[in-house]
Amino acid sequence: MTVAAIYDMKRDPSNRDVMSYEEDGDRHSIYFLRARSREDLQRRMVGHRKIADLTFGMFGRSPDHVASFVTGMVMKPDELPSPHAYADNLLAYYRHARDQDTYVVYAVVPPQAARDPQFYTRKNLPVPPLSVVREEDDGVVISGMKMLATGAVLANEIWIGNVLPLAPDQKKEAITCVVPCNAPGLTLWSRKPLSLASRTEFDSPLAWRYDETDSMLLCKEVKVPWERVFVNGDALLSRDIYVKTPSHCFGNHQSSVRYWSKMRLLLGLCSKVAQATGANQVPAVKEKLGQMSAVEGVIAGMVNGQINAFESWPAGYVCFNRRIMYAALDWCTQNYAKFVDELRELCGGGVFQMPADISVMQNETLAELFTTYFQTPQCDAVTRMKLFKLAWDFVGSEFAGRHQQYEKFYAGASFIVRNHAFRETDWTAFNRIVEDLMASYDYAKSAATAAAE
Amino acid sequence: MTVAAIYDMKRDPSNRDVMSYEEDGDRHSIYFLRARSREDLQRRMVGHRKIADLTFGMFGRSPDHVASFVTGMVMKPDELPSPHAYADNLLAYYRHARDQDTYVVYAVVPPQAARDPQFYTRKNLPVPPLSVVREEDDGVVISGMKMLATGAVLANEIWIGNVLPLAPDQKKEAITCVVPCNAPGLTLWSRKPLSLASRTEFDSPLAWRYDETDSMLLCKEVKVPWERVFVNGDALLSRDIYVKTPSHCFGNHQSSVRYWSKMRLLLGLCSKVAQATGANQVPAVKEKLGQMSAVEGVIAGMVNGQINAFESWPAGYVCFNRRIMYAALDWCTQNYAKFVDELRELCGGGVFQMPADISVMQNETLAELFTTYFQTPQCDAVTRMKLFKLAWDFVGSEFAGRHQQYEKFYAGASFIVRNHAFRETDWTAFNRIVEDLMASYDYAKSAATAAAE
Amino acid sequence: MTVAAIYDMKRDPSNRDVMSYEEDGDRHSIYFLRARSREDLQRRMVGHRKIADLTFGMFGRSPDHVASFVTGMVMKPDELPSPHAYADNLLAYYRHARDQDTYVVYAVVPPQAARDPQFYTRKNLPVPPLSVVREEDDGVVISGMKMLATGAVLANEIWIGNVLPLAPDQKKEAITCVVPCNAPGLTLWSRKPLSLASRTEFDSPLAWRYDETDSMLLCKEVKVPWERVFVNGDALLSRDIYVKTPSHCFGNHQSSVRYWSKMRLLLGLCSKVAQATGANQVPAVKEKLGQMSAVEGVIAGMVNGQINAFESWPAGYVCFNRRIMYAALDWCTQNYAKFVDELRELCGGGVFQMPADISVMQNETLAELFTTYFQTPQCDAVTRMKLFKLAWDFVGSEFAGRHQQYEKFYAGASFIVRNHAFRETDWTAFNRIVEDLMASYDYAKSAATAAAE
Amino acid sequence: MTVAAIYDMKRDPSNRDVMSYEEDGDRHSIYFLRARSREDLQRRMVGHRKIADLTFGMFGRSPDHVASFVTGMVMKPDELPSPHAYADNLLAYYRHARDQDTYVVYAVVPPQAARDPQFYTRKNLPVPPLSVVREEDDGVVISGMKMLATGAVLANEIWIGNVLPLAPDQKKEAITCVVPCNAPGLTLWSRKPLSLASRTEFDSPLAWRYDETDSMLLCKEVKVPWERVFVNGDALLSRDIYVKTPSHCFGNHQSSVRYWSKMRLLLGLCSKVAQATGANQVPAVKEKLGQMSAVEGVIAGMVNGQINAFESWPAGYVCFNRRIMYAALDWCTQNYAKFVDELRELCGGGVFQMPADISVMQNETLAELFTTYFQTPQCDAVTRMKLFKLAWDFVGSEFAGRHQQYEKFYAGASFIVRNHAFRETDWTAFNRIVEDLMASYDYAKSAATAAAE
Repeated sequence: MTVAAIYDMKRDPSNRDVMSYEEDGDRHSIYFLRARSREDLQRRMVGHRKIADLTFGMFGRSPDHVASFVTGMVMKPDELPSPHAYADNLLAYYRHARDQDTYVVYAVVPPQAARDPQFYTRKNLPVPPLSVVREEDDGVVISGMKMLATGAVLANEIWIGNVLPLAPDQKKEAITCVVPCNAPGLTLWSRKPLSLASRTEFDSPLAWRYDETDSMLLCKEVKVPWERVFVNGDALLSRDIYVKTPSHCFGNHQSSVRYWSKMRLLLGLCSKVAQATGANQVPAVKEKLGQMSAVEGVIAGMVNGQINAFESWPAGYVCFNRRIMYAALDWCTQNYAKFVDELRELCGGGVFQMPADISVMQNETLAELFTTYFQTPQCDAVTRMKLFKLAWDFVGSEFAGRHQQYEKFYAGASFIVRNHAFRETDWTAFNRIVEDLMASYDYAKSAATAAAE
Repeated sequence: MTVAAIYDMKRDPSNRDVMSYEEDGDRHSIYFLRARSREDLQRRMVGHRKIADLTFGMFGRSPDHVASFVTGMVMKPDELPSPHAYADNLLAYYRHARDQDTYVVYAVVPPQAARDPQFYTRKNLPVPPLSVVREEDDGVVISGMKMLATGAVLANEIWIGNVLPLAPDQKKEAITCVVPCNAPGLTLWSRKPLSLASRTEFDSPLAWRYDETDSMLLCKEVKVPWERVFVNGDALLSRDIYVKTPSHCFGNHQSSVRYWSKMRLLLGLCSKVAQATGANQVPAVKEKLGQMSAVEGVIAGMVNGQINAFESWPAGYVCFNRRIMYAALDWCTQNYAKFVDELRELCGGGVFQMPADISVMQNETLAELFTTYFQTPQCDAVTRMKLFKLAWDFVGSEFAGRHQQYEKFYAGASFIVRNHAFRETDWTAFNRIVEDLMASYDYAKSAATAAAE
Repeated sequence: MTVAAIYDMKRDPSNRDVMSYEEDGDRHSIYFLRARSREDLQRRMVGHRKIADLTFGMFGRSPDHVASFVTGMVMKPDELPSPHAYADNLLAYYRHARDQDTYVVYAVVPPQAARDPQFYTRKNLPVPPLSVVREEDDGVVISGMKMLATGAVLANEIWIGNVLPLAPDQKKEAITCVVPCNAPGLTLWSRKPLSLASRTEFDSPLAWRYDETDSMLLCKEVKVPWERVFVNGDALLSRDIYVKTPSHCFGNHQSSVRYWSKMRLLLGLCSKVAQATGANQVPAVKEKLGQMSAVEGVIAGMVNGQINAFESWPAGYVCFNRRIMYAALDWCTQNYAKFVDELRELCGGGVFQMPADISVMQNETLAELFTTYFQTPQCDAVTRMKLFKLAWDFVGSEFAGRHQQYEKFYAGASFIVRNHAFRETDWTAFNRIVEDLMASYDYAKSAATAAAE
Repeated sequence: MTVAAIYDMKRDPSNRDVMSYEEDGDRHSIYFLRARSREDLQRRMVGHRKIADLTFGMFGRSPDHVASFVTGMVMKPDELPSPHAYADNLLAYYRHARDQDTYVVYAVVPPQAARDPQFYTRKNLPVPPLSVVREEDDGVVISGMKMLATGAVLANEIWIGNVLPLAPDQKKEAITCVVPCNAPGLTLWSRKPLSLASRTEFDSPLAWRYDETDSMLLCKEVKVPWERVFVNGDALLSRDIYVKTPSHCFGNHQSSVRYWSKMRLLLGLCSKVAQATGANQVPAVKEKLGQMSAVEGVIAGMVNGQINAFESWPAGYVCFNRRIMYAALDWCTQNYAKFVDELRELCGGGVFQMPADISVMQNETLAELFTTYFQTPQCDAVTRMKLFKLAWDFVGSEFAGRHQQYEKFYAGASFIVRNHAFRETDWTAFNRIVEDLMASYDYAKSAATAAAE
């Protein structure tokens, strides 16, 4: 329903200019645009933001996410050299996805704790991480698991790959390809749905709509035709295609924009909850609201900064500033729990004052007691309950818990994000700042100066 | 069931010495002990800890909590002077509770955002905060709401009072009394139960057992007999009885001990989860485990420190050190979300790798796939799922969310806790440290010394 | 010397295009440019950065700081209406400062703890805050104190005003004007110079060059000619001229840029110190360097974001995005001590391993011991000492201590910065996000849906 | 002078009972007491505290520090087995130090970045870390460097050893011994004294008195007689003697107590500075003072907790609780910069308002202006300057900077402290908490229960 709403929004004629662009004689979703100027990057950002605002940043694996990875990758096809990579396949797939506006998700991380293949071999068990079991004339056959195919139960296709570095000898795992979600042999093992605890949308509005689910992808002898294989048999290459092209940057720019939408909802909630408790008149709470407004300003700044400080790439393409993008990623993943905690603080005990659920309004006696006793000068009882239920879905429900886990591990453990930042840093330039400063004085001259005084 | 287990544990003969003491010719639960020595305080602590360990610190309103408030209060009955307070009633009630080992909970805070009585008067509505509507020969009649009667749906009696300061003219609200949970006119409006989302104990073991619930207490013309009234009509006194007696300290010492049990479970979970993911070999994870061990050591230290630095009170009684108790309270409330976040970090994406629920084991095909593919060198699949489900109930489930809210607001907003600390601080002594230091030199002498060099 | 170097750099022909612009038939320093496009804002930023890089962000009150306040103010002269404001005087002064490229600093805050005028009146003492003592035909006469005229001992002129709100009746204090530093009756009370502790540039290179000093401004009957008076006698107006024009934003954008330069030096130092101790091979230290690189990326992002999300103002002018600017200001002031602490951590005990000062090299015996024993595989002894002395001037010297104090209070206490953020936030828009979301479902419909399932 | 004051205080008859104990027919300083009961531990703590209060916790290497290491070590002499350790020598040295009340300091860490011996060998250079160069009949001869002999320039003797683990083959470095400070061949390379920047005690009162200095210890062919050698030639043993005896715990308990004194001065300063600025009436500042009072309460709690939860050791001895001691150590080292930052915040810009130094009072004109204009309703000018100078010596001076570095690295990098905590943790017990909980339910029973409902 949420995904459909995104497609509907894009088709709405009033959004045509913002949500699509023209290429090869047709209009395509804006997130397939290969950017050639700062203005193109701005258009991509605005398109991402429209989608993210529609879901309040709560639906991370929207169709523009993986599409951006693909688009970024085709902007530098020479990073997919033969024999182990297939640039033409990628380009063809890009056109297919663009023209069909396919909803692609991905599964690009091996299962946790399954990195010791000898254990499995000793026990005569299949090694869990997904890998190529054999090559055939018409394609490769893959088996094993990948995590975490977020959104997969709603999608058309799944991109399989490796965003984490493989060891050089993990050639069998070095497969990058796309499979349809209904491929024979493919199953999705989805975690517990998070809306189960609520009987109505009223009681848990965010979980109700935006639980995109996370799934383990399990393949048993899934055949992938060659034209959907992009890398095969080169462990390093299977990772490099993300970071040596704009791919990783385009995909994660989307996540900056999505997080921004989330911060906008958060800021609105902070404001409304403070109003509902009457705390918004307290100076310390006003300062807190100013502080949270500054939080929204930081991510706004970093999204815009990625555009203003854009990078020029070969072939006339441009890319968002990668160091600012990784800085945003680190800031986003490190601070989400803290931001949620601020709203938690503003809610106080109010979230526990509300009755078990809104069915209280279906009993006349209870409804009268409820509307009488639970109203406040700021708010009637139902609206107050509605607001606190919504806030609770941001700070305390299982859906909220999943988002706190999700944002922290959106890009892996902290060292993964920071190693991206490390990799893209021109250390020679930063070292030179110190070296030049140190070169501008020496102890002999210093001593002479001192003596002369 | 949990509450029954606590009573069962106390009655177990092997726990007799630890869980009870002798007085007035009978044995009573240890938390009714009026302490006369450091050793008595130690005995109280050990008793609290037995109860808290039984529930892993997850059941805050265990029977020893409010009982400790009552016990602390009777250690200084002259703080309940007539005509507005009734020390004899309190003493009688203490004996009743002690001898019956009653499970008492409390509701001692006015409803949020309901502090502008004129709003209600203008609209011809009852003012929400619970207050005395009239006095009769055989008791007072009370109406209105109090929050948040945690545990009330499981208890025998509810203590009603005011731990937050009232304005001096809020005389009608200045009622302190005890009512049985089945008093006519008394209703409890309980928030949503947190175990609803789970079909089995396996899927959510903590919520399954330890959801103590939080309830709004709503009284409509509830009659309270005079012998259960302790303060009536004196706004300041109705608060002072907690902080001018050992009451507040005895009650909150229990919470320090309970939190300590929680930290012990947390530390165990950190260790087990790190084992399950294999991360416990990584140096950074070892450091993290050492850090979490130190966290457990801090609360262990503060619990023990409250005993070692005990205070002497009149009439031969002793009390836990109040400044250390409030320091612990501030530390506990400020840091809980952070500690949970550490376990969240150790879990990584592992919590989302597990199937929706353990019913997967009831289908033979699924069970085989599950046990084959989800095992790791460290752990078989079912044990791994069991551990991650348990950890998730600490970090991510709605039960976990409630605990993050609960610990933060256990004692009210941060300024409330810190104002307790402020109140109990001997500022004159601390100022004198600086004043004496400053008095030990002056500018004239300083200048002379400098000149002489 | 440092100030001269800035002027020299601007005059260097190779910097002509970057550091100046053409207007009214002449070239002027770029920071006088009234921006009419995103490109103009970019040019201002680049100019600030050239200056800030020259001083590694360690010299806050460089000539472009107050000049930017003045320039921003003349972009909206209708906020200076008569009779209490003098827009023409301001415009004339702008032209004077621009054409002479004057080094103006300011003193715009009343002395701490001096806000109770009655205390002084009772004791027959002059009230400390600077105010107008009388008006004369040729100007106003002012007396009293303002803090904190940073850079004043090096400047040409001092701008006097009020960036903090005055009470409406503080009309005498509501004076905004400019005085030359050598005005009769004007004295500067400068705090202790921070380079005193060091005998040589080698021992304390940053303090040696960049101690801009902070001074109390004390005026005794200083005459200010009318043409240098911009506001007189209107308490609210005397503050509004900063925040209702681009003034405050232009001035504080400079501080974002300057802080960025500081972070670049910090990042360089982190890298070099990690090299010198050999710690740069440790994975945890690599992650730390990546993290610090991300810190530099955050401020880079927010500086660029202020440009990309620029605001359109009347009369064809544009301004940096104010919410992002205040977000940057809050982030900068809140985190400086933390960033310094990261470098402190990388230094370890190394900063205390070095001899008292570099005079050790002037004694042959000591020099030999020193160069022999204090070298490491990574670094000869003198270079190592040089690096650690430099790092210490960032983390531990009194100069470092002043910067930690300075950055925290650069814009006043935290609530001041956040109230700026609060003020510029369109709360209606943020509230509407929540309101629209809540309007999209209601309990009746929710209940019906639930029932139908 | 400071050290002399400590000895004088101990000799003061009024402190006799607190500061000394009787053994072997004589009275000795309390910190040589081998504890046999909780009360003995309490006496040690009180003694440490008297010394620490005298120096406001600002003089870390007071005579009771290393003496406590020695005392703790002789409580378990069987951890010093022959042939590589000399328990008798240790015991004899303990008696010598106790009976003479010697001021011993130590140097127990190898120089930073000097851990690659091959680099030095290749260059024909002496390997920097101190080691045994040869053994002779009457003693061992040692050469090389150790860091950081804090207090050494004031002490009688230096304990040389290894608190950090050595590699098993570093036998030459595995020397533990004591040398007098005037041993031939021994030189101390002291870092810059921190009081140089101030002309008077008034301007920098803490640095003036309490700069204990840090020195590199450089030995060239220093002869150590055998009776002062405690370990020789066993790398593991040379470290184990600290952690397998109460040594490390006794020594670091002293540091907990010292830190506590520091927090008491800090709390006094927070209070006095808030008074001086008039901010103490602001609710947010009152909360801040309450928070800082809680900080003092945390360390008070952990010091007392180490006593209440004491450990029983063989031979009738008792030891402070080691896990609480390491928890305190971690808390102390992690948070010092944060606590300083709180005082920094309370000071605001006030620290820069003061004139360069107090010589202003020696000029009549300036003195009059100063006393007139710099007074406030709360404070005369000189007292205000005195207070802010004192506060600055805690937050901003180079002495303050050294303490921020010192506390962070008091016990080495964070992983060192946490590995101590890790080592002393009974992981089996903590794992069992989780294992027992998990054993109390299983999926089969869970499923059955669910089905029955």
